[in-house]
Amino acid sequence: MELLYMKIAVDAMGGDYAPEETVLGAIDAVQTDDIEVVLVGDETRLRALLKEYGAAQQSRISIVHASEVIEMHEHPAQAIRKKKDASILVATRLVKEGRCDAVVAPGSTGAAVSAALLGLGRIKGIERPCIATPLPSKKGITVLLDSGANANSKPKHLLEGAIMGAHYAKYILGIADPLVGLLNIGEEASKGNDLCQRTYPLLEHLKTISFYGNVEGRDIPNGTVDVVVCDGFVGNVILKFGEGMALFIIKLVKDAIRHGGWLAKLGALAVYPALKSLKKRLDFTEYGGAPLLGVNGSFIICHGSSKAKAIKNAIRIASEFVEKDVVGHIRKSIEEEQVEQYNEQ
Amino acid sequence: MELLYMKIAVDAMGGDYAPEETVLGAIDAVQTDDIEVVLVGDETRLRALLKEYGAAQQSRISIVHASEVIEMHEHPAQAIRKKKDASILVATRLVKEGRCDAVVAPGSTGAAVSAALLGLGRIKGIERPCIATPLPSKKGITVLLDSGANANSKPKHLLEGAIMGAHYAKYILGIADPLVGLLNIGEEASKGNDLCQRTYPLLEHLKTISFYGNVEGRDIPNGTVDVVVCDGFVGNVILKFGEGMALFIIKLVKDAIRHGGWLAKLGALAVYPALKSLKKRLDFTEYGGAPLLGVNGSFIICHGSSKAKAIKNAIRIASEFVEKDVVGHIRKSIEEEQVEQYNEQ
Repeated sequence: MELLYMKIAVDAMGGDYAPEETVLGAIDAVQTDDIEVVLVGDETRLRALLKEYGAAQQSRISIVHASEVIEMHEHPAQAIRKKKDASILVATRLVKEGRCDAVVAPGSTGAAVSAALLGLGRIKGIERPCIATPLPSKKGITVLLDSGANANSKPKHLLEGAIMGAHYAKYILGIADPLVGLLNIGEEASKGNDLCQRTYPLLEHLKTISFYGNVEGRDIPNGTVDVVVCDGFVGNVILKFGEGMALFIIKLVKDAIRHGGWLAKLGALAVYPALKSLKKRLDFTEYGGAPLLGVNGSFIICHGSSKAKAIKNAIRIASEFVEKDVVGHIRKSIEEEQVEQYNEQ
Repeated sequence: MELLYMKIAVDAMGGDYAPEETVLGAIDAVQTDDIEVVLVGDETRLRALLKEYGAAQQSRISIVHASEVIEMHEHPAQAIRKKKDASILVATRLVKEGRCDAVVAPGSTGAAVSAALLGLGRIKGIERPCIATPLPSKKGITVLLDSGANANSKPKHLLEGAIMGAHYAKYILGIADPLVGLLNIGEEASKGNDLCQRTYPLLEHLKTISFYGNVEGRDIPNGTVDVVVCDGFVGNVILKFGEGMALFIIKLVKDAIRHGGWLAKLGALAVYPALKSLKKRLDFTEYGGAPLLGVNGSFIICHGSSKAKAIKNAIRIASEFVEKDVVGHIRKSIEEEQVEQYNEQ
């Protein structure tokens, strides 16, 4: 009798280090966890790589051919329309058709979002799926969403994000009753831009979610709340600013040590490993990718620069999404909260 | 014959550590630079403090009495209307009346902005004055604006910000031909939210300013451009997120050293001074405050938590603003660029 494992479709051709690193990540994943991986992409190349890495006989990795790839620089929506056999579209179709349980998508975020919307569609009641990114904080992890799926958000989109982010925090990060904050530039309900002022009362009326109120930029690293909701423009700027800041500060520390005299140089021997672990903690890809929430299926987006370890972590998160039925819980909560009443907001 | 020094009006009652630290900062400033300081606030208290700090005879510090103070927690616009004799209003009036050359305003940013708008008015052609904050970057300093004066910006407001930020970078930071970037979530002109898409063509047509194009969050610490323009909501979120991140990362480095074994502890002896200088570099107040650009006068806003050194630096920046006639240069450029043609945008 054949055991039935969960099947994760990986766009093996997506990202700066594909397909080598995606294949290595997949091999690592099936060796660690009880799952199957379907690599989607150029069959000849993928088969050769599996052989090269000694995994040609690995029964829990299979290949589904896709003849095209969407490159990082391409216009997402145009490329999705033009390249019908793109690996990201084929991978998404596998989930749509029930042949796989989840998608792992490294590479162009825009193409991934377009493929998911087109291939899986939105959960009933959701207008704008959004990307939830786990960021390191003093207390562990703060989930930031939307971190880049939508450039122009309306109050209802932030309401959807609040509900979806809370479920991600609950089921994937294991926080029993996640606190959700609205990113703003002041604490009082009356503060901020039009979007925030109109979103606040909507969040206040949520029945299934614990709304904390407004939070400010510093509350993200401070871990004041578990989930921070903002529009996709602000979220994406923060994400990229945070990455840049982390690298800049680590460089400053290294420079300070380098120019700090002989004692500092001696100290550096001890501090470098600490810096390395710090860099890892600040490396947003370490958490295994960011889920696209609000589509009809489990869909994990990875950084374009993902290497094997990030791919492996994303595959694990994808399987947890399926196991915990995050999509099902979101669907239920969206119905309970009757979010459709806010459609005009 | 009496020498005529530049006169800086300092709201001596503003901020968490007022009036002690504002008085100490003023004493330090007149001892270092050829300027006069007018302390505005509770005369009895200020006189007692000057005496206590051995500066009762300091001829280049004078006091102008103000009977009220606007506290950090007060609603700015309401407080400004109610407290006619607030120190920030009296200080601003001194500049309006030509009795002082510039204002240094620690304390509530909202109250400072309201006082400046009310007391000095806007430069002809400017709709929205904005706050320019110098941030540390790999290449020195990146100016971010608007960092919090306006919650809802229009394309024309960002255009104004681009022109004003460039003049700040040129005359105060000494960058001959500053590069100005538009903060966005992608590089192409077509990327981003509605505000960015409508602002880009306006910036492209600037004659007196070098427009680089779109930049992303990571370009702020990377120093890709000298001036980064964004709306006040995004700018303020970034500013506070950056402050929080810096403190968080320094904490992580310290923790890593603390738990890193005996060699790390030895190394810490050498690294702590480096960390301290790093913290200083990342301390946004060290740069001496953020100018409010676009009002009819030199107006420097300081962090509410400013101590003597930050006050002293702000006084110096204020005097440079006057000396270099930044307001005059902005006025001229706003006229040359005929920004009024964009009034509906």
